[in-house]
Amino acid sequence: MFVCSSCGAREPATTRASGCACGGLWDLEHEHPPFGLDAVDRGEWSMFRYRAFMGLDDDTAWRSVTMGEGMTPIIDFDDDLALKMDYFMPTLSFKDRGAAVLVAHCVSIGVENVAQDSSGNAGHAVAAYCARAGIGCEIFVPEGTSPKKIDLIRACGATVNVVPGNRDHCAEVCRAKVADEGVYYANHVYNPVFYEGTKTFAYEIYEQLGRVPANILVPVGNGTLFLGLMKGLEDLLHAGLIETMPQIIAVQAQGCDPLLRAAEAGASQPVTVTPEPTLAEGIAIGAPMRGAQILAHARRYGVRFVHAPEDEILRARAALAARGVYCEHTTAANLAAYWQYCRQWGPTPDCLTAMCGAGLKSDH
Amino acid sequence: MFVCSSCGAREPATTRASGCACGGLWDLEHEHPPFGLDAVDRGEWSMFRYRAFMGLDDDTAWRSVTMGEGMTPIIDFDDDLALKMDYFMPTLSFKDRGAAVLVAHCVSIGVENVAQDSSGNAGHAVAAYCARAGIGCEIFVPEGTSPKKIDLIRACGATVNVVPGNRDHCAEVCRAKVADEGVYYANHVYNPVFYEGTKTFAYEIYEQLGRVPANILVPVGNGTLFLGLMKGLEDLLHAGLIETMPQIIAVQAQGCDPLLRAAEAGASQPVTVTPEPTLAEGIAIGAPMRGAQILAHARRYGVRFVHAPEDEILRARAALAARGVYCEHTTAANLAAYWQYCRQWGPTPDCLTAMCGAGLKSDH
Repeated sequence: MFVCSSCGAREPATTRASGCACGGLWDLEHEHPPFGLDAVDRGEWSMFRYRAFMGLDDDTAWRSVTMGEGMTPIIDFDDDLALKMDYFMPTLSFKDRGAAVLVAHCVSIGVENVAQDSSGNAGHAVAAYCARAGIGCEIFVPEGTSPKKIDLIRACGATVNVVPGNRDHCAEVCRAKVADEGVYYANHVYNPVFYEGTKTFAYEIYEQLGRVPANILVPVGNGTLFLGLMKGLEDLLHAGLIETMPQIIAVQAQGCDPLLRAAEAGASQPVTVTPEPTLAEGIAIGAPMRGAQILAHARRYGVRFVHAPEDEILRARAALAARGVYCEHTTAANLAAYWQYCRQWGPTPDCLTAMCGAGLKSDH
Repeated sequence: MFVCSSCGAREPATTRASGCACGGLWDLEHEHPPFGLDAVDRGEWSMFRYRAFMGLDDDTAWRSVTMGEGMTPIIDFDDDLALKMDYFMPTLSFKDRGAAVLVAHCVSIGVENVAQDSSGNAGHAVAAYCARAGIGCEIFVPEGTSPKKIDLIRACGATVNVVPGNRDHCAEVCRAKVADEGVYYANHVYNPVFYEGTKTFAYEIYEQLGRVPANILVPVGNGTLFLGLMKGLEDLLHAGLIETMPQIIAVQAQGCDPLLRAAEAGASQPVTVTPEPTLAEGIAIGAPMRGAQILAHARRYGVRFVHAPEDEILRARAALAARGVYCEHTTAANLAAYWQYCRQWGPTPDCLTAMCGAGLKSDH
């Protein structure tokens, strides 16, 4: 069931509406058994081993969609910090978790064409899974998007529509197409099914370690990983597998931190910011659509926000490469933020963070 | 125990000698229990779950080296062909399997510095694992090597030595350094420990599917995957887990096929060829050092060789991308070769091949 996060209106999950008529975004409500390893299909070597908890309408669609995403290993950075290697994935970023489930949902409800606006990893992931599923896909990107990313999306057979103007205008053009032509909006922020995939990040941590680390540091731009992580951790909590939530540390870019500022001010909505250029472009979201939701979670669970200091991102990327891990700049920002957090809050052992994107996906 | 493949001389596996004094290459002999799932450490989410069969001198070195390599999923290309997604790996190619075990071996015998000549994925993999293990690493590459590959190797902190002249001369310069300075030769063809890693490719297939497909199509240049695969399959055979070897289909580039020609002529040594330019540069090895070994395996097990038709590689790459899989050109050659094989030998269901390298690793 899709439930409006704003007015509470309800529609079947088979709805093609990209959001509620009131303008609110959909959340997904569905019944599933309490999370437990006995309901995990351990013979399946992808994150669809957790499909009993995903609320997919049928149990076959995922088979035509999966490319073996998830099941990413956890390795040491040092004695204190562990890395979940979430770019060992079909399109080399964690966004495959969300895209795989979202496209499986599209298959199960008979969607034939989707549109999505994203110049980054989410657009690439949705395009790849649509190719896999035989679903038509049009990706809208703002002018100035790197040729490398456009090539990756086109290689999947998706149509790329380069829209003059900024990122927000690009999204408007895409949503106008969705509204006018009845195309399905396979957007990683709007569509709540995406989080059914990213929540497996938490499930896997628990299955792999047999516990959850005391601290989890997670990048937050639009919050696709953050919201999934919280959802997965809540499932572990409700199932009685963990007694308390870990300390969540939410990373924002120094030059684009609407949620950090809101959290510090005790506000329930993101602060209006003027984004500055940052190497952590993947989390540089000036006006996150689910900002209020993110901030509500942050208040409920005592999430701490921290900046990724801009002038330490390259050093962090080099430090990771010196441990064999070559990642995107946005991903390196997680380590820079961990260092910053340790300066602010003291030594922080038993911490885990995500390696979200492979280094070759960066443009420079 | 290192055993010379030419004269049979034996040395402890702790030897620093890159090859036998007679000029022959080392093979590795070691006792291990028959392969069986009961000896697999299923709690370890990397290919080191198979370490009981690897012949490593100690059981701790791998822990400081692993980056979660292996455990790659098998997905469908179509009803007949399955793809093992072997670029879901730290450096985005299957070479991580071999590099991880080789560098673990280096740690266990106390090696402090290594040299390696490779302009491709093997050099990148060895550099990354040396970074991980804190071992000094110098990679020799021939002039003309792409800046992208040099950047990737340098990002791992390795020294890159660009050698004027061709690939063979580059190898000679590297081996001269090894001989003169006593540096350890961490070469994927010379060093037999590398195959202890690539053999896990076969183990994983068996563990994942509970059987081995009737046909396995594998690229062969220097044979690092082929020889590992054969070793792993022989282990399955000797353990009684499979009754016969699958039909192995060995792929060579149309413009560089010294093993295919030798097999067709019934020769025991690779034929001398003049390599032509090919998109499948990763398997374009004019004089494979272990050619005689590869051909001996091919005779023993009825391996069939097939060309990857040059003019179908791009079409194969596009066909894979249209299924969501964006791979290197050399990897796409596997699909082109599969098509060619089906034309020559008829429809070939129940076939598996490897997706060896991620598309972003290609230069074009």
